[in-house]
Amino acid sequence: MNLPRSNKPRIVIIGGGFAGMNLAKNLRNSGYQIVLIDKNNFHTFQPLLYQVATAGLEPDSIAYPLRKIFNNYDDFYFRIAEAKSIDCEGNSLQTDKGKIDFDYLVIATGAETNYFGNKNIENYGMAMKSVREALDLRSLMLQNFEDALITNDVTEREQLMNIVIVGGGPTGVELAGALAELKKLVLPKDYPDLDFRQMSVHLVEAAPRLLSAMSEDASREASKFLTTMGVQIWLNTMVSDFNGEEVKTNSKNLPAKTLIWAAGVQGAPVVGVDFNKQKRVSTNEFFNIDGHDNIFSIGDLAVIKTETLKNGYPMLASVACQQGVHLAKNFKRMLLKKPAIPFSYKDQGTMATVGRNRAVVDFPHYKFQGRIAWYVWMFVHLILLVGFRNKVVALVNWVWSYINFDSGIRLIIRPFNRKVKQPDLPEEIVV
Amino acid sequence: MNLPRSNKPRIVIIGGGFAGMNLAKNLRNSGYQIVLIDKNNFHTFQPLLYQVATAGLEPDSIAYPLRKIFNNYDDFYFRIAEAKSIDCEGNSLQTDKGKIDFDYLVIATGAETNYFGNKNIENYGMAMKSVREALDLRSLMLQNFEDALITNDVTEREQLMNIVIVGGGPTGVELAGALAELKKLVLPKDYPDLDFRQMSVHLVEAAPRLLSAMSEDASREASKFLTTMGVQIWLNTMVSDFNGEEVKTNSKNLPAKTLIWAAGVQGAPVVGVDFNKQKRVSTNEFFNIDGHDNIFSIGDLAVIKTETLKNGYPMLASVACQQGVHLAKNFKRMLLKKPAIPFSYKDQGTMATVGRNRAVVDFPHYKFQGRIAWYVWMFVHLILLVGFRNKVVALVNWVWSYINFDSGIRLIIRPFNRKVKQPDLPEEIVV
Repeated sequence: MNLPRSNKPRIVIIGGGFAGMNLAKNLRNSGYQIVLIDKNNFHTFQPLLYQVATAGLEPDSIAYPLRKIFNNYDDFYFRIAEAKSIDCEGNSLQTDKGKIDFDYLVIATGAETNYFGNKNIENYGMAMKSVREALDLRSLMLQNFEDALITNDVTEREQLMNIVIVGGGPTGVELAGALAELKKLVLPKDYPDLDFRQMSVHLVEAAPRLLSAMSEDASREASKFLTTMGVQIWLNTMVSDFNGEEVKTNSKNLPAKTLIWAAGVQGAPVVGVDFNKQKRVSTNEFFNIDGHDNIFSIGDLAVIKTETLKNGYPMLASVACQQGVHLAKNFKRMLLKKPAIPFSYKDQGTMATVGRNRAVVDFPHYKFQGRIAWYVWMFVHLILLVGFRNKVVALVNWVWSYINFDSGIRLIIRPFNRKVKQPDLPEEIVV
Repeated sequence: MNLPRSNKPRIVIIGGGFAGMNLAKNLRNSGYQIVLIDKNNFHTFQPLLYQVATAGLEPDSIAYPLRKIFNNYDDFYFRIAEAKSIDCEGNSLQTDKGKIDFDYLVIATGAETNYFGNKNIENYGMAMKSVREALDLRSLMLQNFEDALITNDVTEREQLMNIVIVGGGPTGVELAGALAELKKLVLPKDYPDLDFRQMSVHLVEAAPRLLSAMSEDASREASKFLTTMGVQIWLNTMVSDFNGEEVKTNSKNLPAKTLIWAAGVQGAPVVGVDFNKQKRVSTNEFFNIDGHDNIFSIGDLAVIKTETLKNGYPMLASVACQQGVHLAKNFKRMLLKKPAIPFSYKDQGTMATVGRNRAVVDFPHYKFQGRIAWYVWMFVHLILLVGFRNKVVALVNWVWSYINFDSGIRLIIRPFNRKVKQPDLPEEIVV
């Protein structure tokens, strides 16, 4: 690849998510040459993807051009490229755009949707890990309401209007809340000839409670909020199959053409590196992968194993951010010939929003729910959005929706066409 | 199609553009049942498409959900459907979603890109008539800059960076100005390792002057502005061919991988109706198509022919708006058994913007150019945008760009992959 070599050691970073972006930012003009590659030319603020899916925000609020972040950085190079394989001994990375040599490599490719081998759910279900997937989901749901108007078949109309969300983590809870609000406040105005009592929003969770990574208080209040808003919650319920029209679970079958799969993630490792059953890469507390002093992994992909920490930290944006900042610090210490500092995660709490004036917040020493929690949630997410412009655009949209009980972006710009993967056809044809 | 019949006469409108939307708005609760169909679920404000293409605005500023416009209209039905054929004698319209009977039909399907039969330009060139096409163009240009960084081939790099715009009407002039500003103010910051002296923005026009539908003053000043900004203008120049890497003209061949075709439009008629060589439909001054008292055409598709008016009115948004309003008035008079009033266009002037503080305005009795014209252009376009939300979002973005000499939306959300149509393959496969 066409990349100039400077006299500084080169750090190649794979992935411009929370981990990779924070690492690169904190290495600004620091004595290293930085090469950042990503499949996209933007950083995605994944915690707000659900608002793109539910027509609350446009992509420009939650996606930020990576080049713009790194304007004016010295000896910094960004390339759109996909990592293909790593030659750990030869210190080189193969990408779809050519080979890149490195002195240090940081793998921060994050996580991807895990269907646990269920091909039907992968084929017929909708994922929520990228801007494109969120826009596809938005299009599909709006298309289904339009189709519900056309059909004379009552069963089909119900399948078109129903939505099943699998996974009661923050993504599932936030989606369910946003959809319940659309159902109550927005859709009946848009579709006066549809009877929205026929529409159900189902939230299916295999564990005995929602938000199982948060406190019992948060779970209880989130359930209460969602139930008040009309969401049907199915706990201790496993989804086993989906044929595009009906969701099979171990308790009841739910008629629905839209299944949103927010029930599992796995690492997205690069060929040439060992990974575990969850496809995550083990590192030590300095982020080194096994046996390689100059190759690191941070973010959702990495699982730190020490004597006291067996399963690493949770796959959270805050963990990824702290790891990026920490690794940058260690790189700077390296130049000063100081020893690396081991990483430990400072828990800053977790939160989820359910709807208008309704959120749940677990701070390490203080947990609260309701309106204040909602203000805190909004404030924190505005602060975390990259770039002042994105903050302004998101704020304008939120204030607008709050005042008008509405959002303005119910656009089907690109209709979603399901392209079911046929296992017997070569992949190039079926895309 | 599943559409209830009321006791009111039914008007079916094909197309939610300026003509169809204004017609439907002015028939609100007027004694007719209104059925509006469109391929998209949104109205597109076409005059600002070029800002979507040049990463100045997101689609949500210039697209407005049709359902939202017609919230709370009585006896009004919107359906996403594509008109397939009209049975003028049987008073029915066939769509891809089923048949619709009508008492009155208004065909307002507008215009589409006209390549004048040049398949190579259609295959390799980019059009600018829809939001999807504008987003594709945005993606392609950004992808090309990324590819220019990867390649070591100097000729290819030049082809990737150059942009040829064909057609010196308002769309071509506005695109050329916006691209010249990106080249000067924005791209060198994003791509510090590219030399933007290598990039050329070409504007090719077959006529002896730009903006040939406007005044000589407007043409001269627009040319002067564009030349100052570094655009290379080729007048009296015809583009004859394009192979994806080089644009052939009758004076010089221009190396470029991006050709934007803004040089021709034609009507988009529906099967079952006569049309002329430009695929436009002739009507009388009451908008009736030949021989049918209950079938009308308005907007870009319609060409009114009277004894004094041989070639109809220009294909302009203001003509379409006035025609929609006027036909609604005639429909209301019909209910009162009053005779229809013939249409005549009130010229409200035309304008085009070239860049920061630079626009040209032709009012019927007053023509001016420069900074004041630019303010007028912005004010008028803000007023014309549908919906207060869209006005706010557009204004925020414009103020932002003006202050920062930048815009924030250089996102490749969906990479553009050219799918060249092979004439020997059936169309379903090549899509």
